[in-house]
Amino acid sequence: MDGPTPKPAGPGPDTGLLSPVRVGAATEGELTDEAWVQAMLDAEAALVRAQARLGTVPREAAEAITSCARAEALDLPALALRTRGAANPVVALVEEFTKVVAAQRPEAADYVHRGSTSQDILDTGAMLVTARTLRLVLGELDRTAAALARHADDHRDTLAAARTLGQHAVPTTFGLRAAGWLVAVLDVRSRTAALLDGGLPVQLGGAAGTLAGYAEYARLAHCAAASGDAGSQAGDRADGGPWDVGTYTGELIRLFAAETGLAEPVLPWHTRRTPVLDVGAVVALAAVTLGKFAADVSNLARTELAEVSEAAQAGRGVSSAMPHKRNPVLAAMIRSASLQVPSLVLTLTHCAVAEDERPAGAWHGEWQPLREALRLVGGAAATASELAEGLEVHPERMRANLALTGGAVVTERLAAALAPVLGKAEAKQLVSRVAVGAAASDSLADKVLAAAPELSEAFTAGQLEELLAPSGYTGAAGTLIDRALAHHRTTSTAGRKTDLR
Amino acid sequence: MDGPTPKPAGPGPDTGLLSPVRVGAATEGELTDEAWVQAMLDAEAALVRAQARLGTVPREAAEAITSCARAEALDLPALALRTRGAANPVVALVEEFTKVVAAQRPEAADYVHRGSTSQDILDTGAMLVTARTLRLVLGELDRTAAALARHADDHRDTLAAARTLGQHAVPTTFGLRAAGWLVAVLDVRSRTAALLDGGLPVQLGGAAGTLAGYAEYARLAHCAAASGDAGSQAGDRADGGPWDVGTYTGELIRLFAAETGLAEPVLPWHTRRTPVLDVGAVVALAAVTLGKFAADVSNLARTELAEVSEAAQAGRGVSSAMPHKRNPVLAAMIRSASLQVPSLVLTLTHCAVAEDERPAGAWHGEWQPLREALRLVGGAAATASELAEGLEVHPERMRANLALTGGAVVTERLAAALAPVLGKAEAKQLVSRVAVGAAASDSLADKVLAAAPELSEAFTAGQLEELLAPSGYTGAAGTLIDRALAHHRTTSTAGRKTDLR
Amino acid sequence: MDGPTPKPAGPGPDTGLLSPVRVGAATEGELTDEAWVQAMLDAEAALVRAQARLGTVPREAAEAITSCARAEALDLPALALRTRGAANPVVALVEEFTKVVAAQRPEAADYVHRGSTSQDILDTGAMLVTARTLRLVLGELDRTAAALARHADDHRDTLAAARTLGQHAVPTTFGLRAAGWLVAVLDVRSRTAALLDGGLPVQLGGAAGTLAGYAEYARLAHCAAASGDAGSQAGDRADGGPWDVGTYTGELIRLFAAETGLAEPVLPWHTRRTPVLDVGAVVALAAVTLGKFAADVSNLARTELAEVSEAAQAGRGVSSAMPHKRNPVLAAMIRSASLQVPSLVLTLTHCAVAEDERPAGAWHGEWQPLREALRLVGGAAATASELAEGLEVHPERMRANLALTGGAVVTERLAAALAPVLGKAEAKQLVSRVAVGAAASDSLADKVLAAAPELSEAFTAGQLEELLAPSGYTGAAGTLIDRALAHHRTTSTAGRKTDLR
Amino acid sequence: MDGPTPKPAGPGPDTGLLSPVRVGAATEGELTDEAWVQAMLDAEAALVRAQARLGTVPREAAEAITSCARAEALDLPALALRTRGAANPVVALVEEFTKVVAAQRPEAADYVHRGSTSQDILDTGAMLVTARTLRLVLGELDRTAAALARHADDHRDTLAAARTLGQHAVPTTFGLRAAGWLVAVLDVRSRTAALLDGGLPVQLGGAAGTLAGYAEYARLAHCAAASGDAGSQAGDRADGGPWDVGTYTGELIRLFAAETGLAEPVLPWHTRRTPVLDVGAVVALAAVTLGKFAADVSNLARTELAEVSEAAQAGRGVSSAMPHKRNPVLAAMIRSASLQVPSLVLTLTHCAVAEDERPAGAWHGEWQPLREALRLVGGAAATASELAEGLEVHPERMRANLALTGGAVVTERLAAALAPVLGKAEAKQLVSRVAVGAAASDSLADKVLAAAPELSEAFTAGQLEELLAPSGYTGAAGTLIDRALAHHRTTSTAGRKTDLR
Repeated sequence: MDGPTPKPAGPGPDTGLLSPVRVGAATEGELTDEAWVQAMLDAEAALVRAQARLGTVPREAAEAITSCARAEALDLPALALRTRGAANPVVALVEEFTKVVAAQRPEAADYVHRGSTSQDILDTGAMLVTARTLRLVLGELDRTAAALARHADDHRDTLAAARTLGQHAVPTTFGLRAAGWLVAVLDVRSRTAALLDGGLPVQLGGAAGTLAGYAEYARLAHCAAASGDAGSQAGDRADGGPWDVGTYTGELIRLFAAETGLAEPVLPWHTRRTPVLDVGAVVALAAVTLGKFAADVSNLARTELAEVSEAAQAGRGVSSAMPHKRNPVLAAMIRSASLQVPSLVLTLTHCAVAEDERPAGAWHGEWQPLREALRLVGGAAATASELAEGLEVHPERMRANLALTGGAVVTERLAAALAPVLGKAEAKQLVSRVAVGAAASDSLADKVLAAAPELSEAFTAGQLEELLAPSGYTGAAGTLIDRALAHHRTTSTAGRKTDLR
Repeated sequence: MDGPTPKPAGPGPDTGLLSPVRVGAATEGELTDEAWVQAMLDAEAALVRAQARLGTVPREAAEAITSCARAEALDLPALALRTRGAANPVVALVEEFTKVVAAQRPEAADYVHRGSTSQDILDTGAMLVTARTLRLVLGELDRTAAALARHADDHRDTLAAARTLGQHAVPTTFGLRAAGWLVAVLDVRSRTAALLDGGLPVQLGGAAGTLAGYAEYARLAHCAAASGDAGSQAGDRADGGPWDVGTYTGELIRLFAAETGLAEPVLPWHTRRTPVLDVGAVVALAAVTLGKFAADVSNLARTELAEVSEAAQAGRGVSSAMPHKRNPVLAAMIRSASLQVPSLVLTLTHCAVAEDERPAGAWHGEWQPLREALRLVGGAAATASELAEGLEVHPERMRANLALTGGAVVTERLAAALAPVLGKAEAKQLVSRVAVGAAASDSLADKVLAAAPELSEAFTAGQLEELLAPSGYTGAAGTLIDRALAHHRTTSTAGRKTDLR
Repeated sequence: MDGPTPKPAGPGPDTGLLSPVRVGAATEGELTDEAWVQAMLDAEAALVRAQARLGTVPREAAEAITSCARAEALDLPALALRTRGAANPVVALVEEFTKVVAAQRPEAADYVHRGSTSQDILDTGAMLVTARTLRLVLGELDRTAAALARHADDHRDTLAAARTLGQHAVPTTFGLRAAGWLVAVLDVRSRTAALLDGGLPVQLGGAAGTLAGYAEYARLAHCAAASGDAGSQAGDRADGGPWDVGTYTGELIRLFAAETGLAEPVLPWHTRRTPVLDVGAVVALAAVTLGKFAADVSNLARTELAEVSEAAQAGRGVSSAMPHKRNPVLAAMIRSASLQVPSLVLTLTHCAVAEDERPAGAWHGEWQPLREALRLVGGAAATASELAEGLEVHPERMRANLALTGGAVVTERLAAALAPVLGKAEAKQLVSRVAVGAAASDSLADKVLAAAPELSEAFTAGQLEELLAPSGYTGAAGTLIDRALAHHRTTSTAGRKTDLR
Repeated sequence: MDGPTPKPAGPGPDTGLLSPVRVGAATEGELTDEAWVQAMLDAEAALVRAQARLGTVPREAAEAITSCARAEALDLPALALRTRGAANPVVALVEEFTKVVAAQRPEAADYVHRGSTSQDILDTGAMLVTARTLRLVLGELDRTAAALARHADDHRDTLAAARTLGQHAVPTTFGLRAAGWLVAVLDVRSRTAALLDGGLPVQLGGAAGTLAGYAEYARLAHCAAASGDAGSQAGDRADGGPWDVGTYTGELIRLFAAETGLAEPVLPWHTRRTPVLDVGAVVALAAVTLGKFAADVSNLARTELAEVSEAAQAGRGVSSAMPHKRNPVLAAMIRSASLQVPSLVLTLTHCAVAEDERPAGAWHGEWQPLREALRLVGGAAATASELAEGLEVHPERMRANLALTGGAVVTERLAAALAPVLGKAEAKQLVSRVAVGAAASDSLADKVLAAAPELSEAFTAGQLEELLAPSGYTGAAGTLIDRALAHHRTTSTAGRKTDLR
């Protein structure tokens, strides 16, 4: 009956079983080991194509390497075992990839990873993975924003209680609440679009940021060509002008960026991790912005509030114990991501204190947190669009809740109105006395008049009751909704310019 | 021997004794309790001036309130004791400030905080404090950048070993290393300038984001004016047109922003904390960017490396035990900040999941981490400019260190040069065999020729030795320095447009 | 209207204005700059007394130094300015303290800080501060536990809805909820007591952990005494046996611990920061445990739930805008601490990667986060005891809320009871169909019988209604309360053994 | 050149490619999706066995369920897709597992998950996974400790420079440095052993912590048995005494703990996450403790210091660009883990603020960070034992480095020795003057006598030189090593008592 259970040996699939928020999201496909390897191979291929465009590598070799650059040709678990040799996956990857190329196009094999270093490939690959993921995230944000804009517009006049510290504060509208979520999502959207539009650079520095290896191979190729070597690797170069390291490397950075679709950096950023922190800042903002939306939904869906509910759907929101429950599971999943991503971004931040020209651990500590953060944000964004699009809104519950305090929710207005008669401080105190603990059945107007009979000269009970109607005290809610919707129209057309290879 | 020591009662000065990095920094003055109170009073004054410009408050009252808005008039420790009543400092502050105004200008007292809410004042005050601090930080970053640009230019040809994972990798120049620090600082600078130029908005939402309180008081004033009330509080209004809540509140936001010098938000951001996270992202980047510079300095200053040292100065770098030591204390202090700031920013990130229209704790958890992060970044920026300006560079030690491996540091080049003769893989293996464990006294050229006699047809020992000269293998270092310096010239003129009141 | 406001220069009092949770807490007095300086002076005095007990310092000098060790004699702001010289406060402190001693007892001045190093004094001081703070925290935890135990006992049979994912799940009792908070607080209490009982060690290592300085001075004193020097500083030593470095240093550690009341470490822990991380783990647990209690209170106090409220008190829970509000401000303040402390502890964790024998920044980054974490936990503990003791419980609201779903909250039981008749799966599905969306007015019993008429053979409507009574389905709530109360009785007598000097 | 690359669809293996530190570690097998599912099935099986021992479930059903509880029978990717329905994996798992049981032993299927809730299974499973992982970690810590103890003993007299802030401070021994690492590892070991010995409890609370579901099914079984039902599910019960919910549930908790090998909690801990935080505290301590060891190794292995190196091994420490390099890759990998784990633990800490009886996201955010933290610590522990066992120590380099400052490293002693002649302050100043900037070739003794001729009465140059010999100034290093080794002998026999099923 008992004794320890035999354990599965070795790594198995990481299916998302412990991270439901990201299961099934389109971004998952961009973040597998295979996708990372593919991105690194894409970087190798782009590099050799850039070198070919500069004439220091034969065009045919670049084409051959590009056509071989397919992750499915490699045995990833075997590769993983060999990452420990260099503490990074690139060394083993280059060896295996070179074998693949050598097997298919022997003459091209020597041009793989020519002059390069692990970090150029891994960092460029990471930026490609990030860009590919964020483009999908952008789409989900757009869906979410559109749904929220619709809610804002539809519920422009749906009265609800605004809550501060959990207590009814003043009236608001559900439309304004949705508009607040909308503008927050647009904040994330615009920052994501900005990243995709020039914020994600290639990495190109060679062994330690001087590009010396790239330059040396190019110089050798140039010399060979200049010396009339018929079989020269640089036979494609048209011009015979003097070779200049500055011009060459400048062009190499530019063309590498062009071949990948990523941006061109001022300098190599081996230990200047601004690009990684920029990504971190955006994904952290995304996670908590969606988390705030989710937190609101789960609070508003509380049994006692019941102002919204998630879309009813078979098998969704179920409990293993309680048959009657309909849990806000989309919100819970989004919230689970918003709790995890900030910490992962924090690791990226700490890793940015990267000593020397390559640190002994800080670079290596970035990869998995970056992937996990992107996974969670990808999942949260997809889940949020599902949540926003299916959100069921219950205006009658909002109205019922708003009535719970018998008008006390409008005492701010009452105090303002009574101030000219009683003075500001006394008005506030009077209102406070009658309003604390008021219930739905109370008539605050009567209580006010009873407490301060002198008011009857200025106000009838009816006038006071009108002052206490929540519908008359929503301030600029409508105007603010208009501002939000206009902002939505303006910002949602921008971005997504990146044309990644 | 003598029982426990009696404790000082109550809060005392927090002098920076436990946070030397920020002691004496100019930013300290912007971050005291008094400075925060001043910023909140500045917000109150700006608000009433904006109301006066719209004619809903008498101009004289606005002037009176502005002239009374001086933090030194308030008893801060007494105020602190009363913050517990509302869990925030504004309620007590408004009460005390109103008393101050009432004492000096009784007729203006009723206009203090009219229609407002704690969060409008505290958030706007926080943005003012942030802006004032970051303007000083910008100045320190400029000083640091200028000093680093000078180092980059001065040491354009100063050879040094580039190090990856702590091991000599390939040659570089100290100028390029300084250029790397420079571009990183410019990254921080441009993001700081962008924040100051439109990224720090006022907060204006009223009790729960509808602006209803502001609108109500304005409406009452308009009605009073319209009814021909001679002594109307809105006597300054010229036009008699119909009053519109949307127009009024839109103008109020715009004028409040103008009066403070801060930006105008799309919507109130009571629970859309993007502005706080934007500040967080910049200060985190600042902290770790300066931290990386500091980490490099303390590593390069190690007794065994001794390639740089901090400026010698009486009483600086001293040890309580060891008379001979000259510790890199500026670097240590900066590093202490870079370890603390990311966590503080993380708190800001978590606090952004702010439920409802005002959260029960998440807002309240922001203030102190924001202040502490600004303090540390202010201190780190001032310390970094001192470090950069005084940094002593020892080229002769760099050269001596570069020679430690007897040329092994140039084996990447050697492998490239031998590849056409031996093949890429074999060349790399040969070079690896001779180079591992090489010492300063070794002649790698001889060892190579001994190991592969066939090479003597292609290379003389002298040619190999030339290949192994570090000075010949700095790649694009000079070009990259030029790019960095050009970038410095371009970016250092931007920013600082904010004109805070 | 009028230009920037002049700023206060230099550091001012940090009164807690931005951190209301800790204002007025008894722990505040243990965490001021003055208290830290006092603790460091206590360490200096304990050290010299330990040396005197070993005969290497004259007893009179130790007494003189002890009597001079008063923080109020020192100018703290001036001291703070000088901390930048060594990047820590001890070097300047020793200089100033030596002057104080020299002025009063010249012959004792040379014995101040003899053989010592900054880190021995600062780390020991930090442990003293920690111990003094945690003793007060322990008292607050005891108060909180006592109040929660009372609630658990008083409300043993107070029915309430248990909530999962915000939805009513099954019935529970308020007593069991309070018992859960109680056991959590007892978890914190027992770990705090364990820290105080041997978990907080002195630091004693000398310049770099070998105790060489202490040994050298002792050896010199021994030699002088052995050579018959009548005025020897070691005149008190009785025995003339051979001096042994191992015996001496072992005794010195033991006596230093005894003089401070702290624990004796196996080795100096200059760069083995386990003691700091142990403190960190406890304060993080404390913060989030109290934070969970607070989060529950603020949720239960929501206008719609209204099951508990904070004690009514003049000036507490007020809003600057809304006169009717009674905000759960104690809960909000506790929650603000629980959001901040984990990040501060994270900094401590990162700082534990302290390279070499003393790191260049990681040690320096510990002090302020440790202080701030202790401040917040001290404040949160005091606020939590106030919250627990004053908590108002509203059983009638709990009962009303429990009725909201018309018995659906007991469907788990219903499904179990119907399973023998219908099969487990079918029973669950039937119950689910009738229960989702049920309201207070529904008779679930009728709906069940209507949906599955075959059940009428096994159950009458009355029997089903009895099954659906929440009072019959509280499971082991009573037993669990008993377990919690017994645990309270057992654990609350332990701890607090530390006898700090 | 040719458009975007097609992406692999769906989740693929997460092989560790981006996390080399954990590749191949024995702990990996305990942390796969399959291992987690197995642990949850083990919890289900243990639960039903406990129920059978109490007679409320037929023994045969418990045996059948136990024998079916094999993760390999389930389709994990399909399961993962269904986790979104409940936001946790248990609901779908129970459904699938019930089908497996029903297919093999139809009569047992109804007893699967009887009275239970997702959280009981997932939390208990998590504790099982944690315990299984930590037992392996304990073994690695023991290996590491043994290796470090050997280094401490072997290098008891190997002189080396102690370094503070990167600067030579005083002499120490490599043995003492190793002893410091040793005691730190033992700190982790003892806390890990304590967790395994009673610190990891089962979770058992039912739907919301009252155990009502378990009690209800037991009561029904009891009633059926009491009514003489021949086919009763409780036929195994011997006694016919009155059924008591308190006794039953108390026994159920006890027996469930016994069947799993985990500890028995005072109360269910659904939203009292102390056990998770206890695990978090230990894994964070483990990560940074190993990280400090790794940081020291990579610093000591710097080209300029070269005092240690990692074991030479084919394919280890290689660079993709630089053939000569031997990188400290084990240290870098450990460091990468130590940078990640604290943040993951921080997420666990934040998730502990779990509202109500089950939170909407905070519980769901725990699982993946817990797994990832355990993975990284498992990998770091295995890598650390490999590092410690293979560490190559170079005493001759230590001696050479120690000589770099020409004796300045012993000036603390010199100042002590001169103090009786010159006074403490003047002695320190004199020594400081001559020592700053001293080089290997300098004779500090001569410089001292030249600077203070009056000293020649008290000391000959030879005496001063003897004072300046590093070997004479290692203080209590030997004694401290003995303390550490004795501590090792004492603590390494404890722990590992858990007997997990």
